Amino acid sequence: MSETGADGEHSTRGAYVTGGAEFTRDTNYIEDRIVADPAAVRGLPAPPASKVGAVGYGLREGAEAWPVEPGRYRLVAAAACPWANRALIVRRLLGLEGVISVGRPGPVHDARSWTFDLEGSPENVGDRDPVLGTARLQENYFARFPGYPRGITVPAIVDVPSGRVVTNDYPQITLDLSTEWREFHRDGAPDLLPDGALEEMWPVITRIFTEVNNGVYRCGFAGSQDAYDAAYRRLWAALDWLEERLATRRYLMGGTITEADVRLFTTLVRFDPVYHGHFKANRNRLLEMEHLWGYARDLFQTPGFGDTVDFVQIKRHYYVTHEDINPTRIVPDGPELSNWLDPHGRERLGGEPFGDGTPPAPPTEGERVVPGHGPLG
Amino acid sequence: MSETGADGEHSTRGAYVTGGAEFTRDTNYIEDRIVADPAAVRGLPAPPASKVGAVGYGLREGAEAWPVEPGRYRLVAAAACPWANRALIVRRLLGLEGVISVGRPGPVHDARSWTFDLEGSPENVGDRDPVLGTARLQENYFARFPGYPRGITVPAIVDVPSGRVVTNDYPQITLDLSTEWREFHRDGAPDLLPDGALEEMWPVITRIFTEVNNGVYRCGFAGSQDAYDAAYRRLWAALDWLEERLATRRYLMGGTITEADVRLFTTLVRFDPVYHGHFKANRNRLLEMEHLWGYARDLFQTPGFGDTVDFVQIKRHYYVTHEDINPTRIVPDGPELSNWLDPHGRERLGGEPFGDGTPPAPPTEGERVVPGHGPLG
Repeated sequence: MSETGADGEHSTRGAYVTGGAEFTRDTNYIEDRIVADPAAVRGLPAPPASKVGAVGYGLREGAEAWPVEPGRYRLVAAAACPWANRALIVRRLLGLEGVISVGRPGPVHDARSWTFDLEGSPENVGDRDPVLGTARLQENYFARFPGYPRGITVPAIVDVPSGRVVTNDYPQITLDLSTEWREFHRDGAPDLLPDGALEEMWPVITRIFTEVNNGVYRCGFAGSQDAYDAAYRRLWAALDWLEERLATRRYLMGGTITEADVRLFTTLVRFDPVYHGHFKANRNRLLEMEHLWGYARDLFQTPGFGDTVDFVQIKRHYYVTHEDINPTRIVPDGPELSNWLDPHGRERLGGEPFGDGTPPAPPTEGERVVPGHGPLG
Repeated sequence: MSETGADGEHSTRGAYVTGGAEFTRDTNYIEDRIVADPAAVRGLPAPPASKVGAVGYGLREGAEAWPVEPGRYRLVAAAACPWANRALIVRRLLGLEGVISVGRPGPVHDARSWTFDLEGSPENVGDRDPVLGTARLQENYFARFPGYPRGITVPAIVDVPSGRVVTNDYPQITLDLSTEWREFHRDGAPDLLPDGALEEMWPVITRIFTEVNNGVYRCGFAGSQDAYDAAYRRLWAALDWLEERLATRRYLMGGTITEADVRLFTTLVRFDPVYHGHFKANRNRLLEMEHLWGYARDLFQTPGFGDTVDFVQIKRHYYVTHEDINPTRIVPDGPELSNWLDPHGRERLGGEPFGDGTPPAPPTEGERVVPGHGPLG
């Protein structure tokens, strides 16, 4: 058990709540990048200190550049984890399934590592990742840095030939999938980082990260009533801002989906099943927030979003792993989820999710969410 | 900490969850009664084994009969506790405030006893009950039975002159307030146990007790996933039955309020603030159940019901006391409660809550819920 507090549920530290303290996310990651032109990227200036990723910059201090190469890398991403879910969605939207494979840890990890045991699920392939051959993701971290001392987090991209983790820098991973892997995007892939919207998008993305994506954890892992109360106020101030913003805009940045929508969606889809009760983020359920709820369903029903969501793994992950806030480890049977497929009515706001592009094809056989783990479970 | 499992949150055993087991309520109480004619009651046959109270019967084995007497008894009832809340409502509806006084333990008890410390609330009168002079309700139980080994529960009725607990048999207490204290009911008091409805009412009351009042505890204190899953199914089967029943009836037994409504109300008013998240009774929030939610608000807005409800004490009690399911003891700030005052529209179903009678006057100064502890808090 870490004495310094956990760095969030995509990580594997055993203790999540530090008595008396506000929850603070460990934001030290392996910041290597996989890029189209390593030499060119090495020549660019380092990005600003912002931790939500950056476009058009070079490497952070100490980081290396790896070359884009189809089939070489494996994205290790637990369906349960919202930070990993981002990468799964962007990979689907851009049609990168054929060039970057996916390894799927099960929903329940221990204090040391995410594991490739899907616990009797049809996805279970023998407790080892069939491509990497490892049983614990920690092995791939250790192959890169023996004795790696920080949390074993997902998403992580692994270099398949060497078995070494290249990066677990989740805010950068999705940006690089959009910009550095462009040569391999499918026909009709959306531009999730449109030039004209970037300047307006960064503050939105940053606020969503600090106040919402991380804000729910700040509620759930608060170590005192005061820390919780403050976290609750911050979270709901941000959700009220988003509710208002989405009253007149179909998507966060306008009429088409962008990176910002991916980042908000992964928190919203977990809100009623997990954050409302487990993290005490309970002023309202999402379904009481008219515009956020319509928006979340609109995205859920858009190819590439809802088809990555495994509610069974999501609930199991949070309620079983966070023993310090749910000591019985009992997983709630609620809430009802079929309403995720209800009509959302957001077409009235205009726009086209993929702009001039097209939706991705359905997931391939091996990547489909297990029947019963979706909203009709 | 008891090794045998707790007997519910109106009691004071320290451990609520027994690993691997279904939650079982201890239903052994002090079954003395306070009656209009002790000699006559001693001559009646004992009631059937049903634990939800009985009308028209005598004493249970070993129990004694005490005489009705204005000013002699004190109802000790924590606002937090649903079983005590029943008695507070019935006392208000019948206008018994002037003849049976109320002692109010604070929301947070320890493993030994409810205490008369309202923790800095304006209701705090120096950590001792101003009439009984005791600091812990346990003292009044011990005055009756030295070393009393079971849970120190509320509601309890105490004989003020001797300081001894007369009864804590909550299913019987409200029935006797209706039938044995009739001489002292206010003008216009409703008949909560109308003769013509009794036969139909008992199965309803029994099902509400086992499946709803106690059903939420069975969810929250389940000691295994299987026990929880079964409890969840039982609870929601009952709530679906009630939702349907209340679609066409304004109140459970028809057009006027009865004892059955009091018993259902005290669970419903705690549902979204506590049971939905804390007890994982989370298929739906109450506000998603159209008829139950309208019905609950109708009652809440009826004098004698909502004016006994202290949401701050309710939430604090459950979240702080049940350390084995909420080890951080942090109390959620949600949910929004102002919607309890929204129009309910149930008048369309006809009926008159008090039948030929009248509503009670507002609570007296000393018995009003602290400002900010109601739905406008």
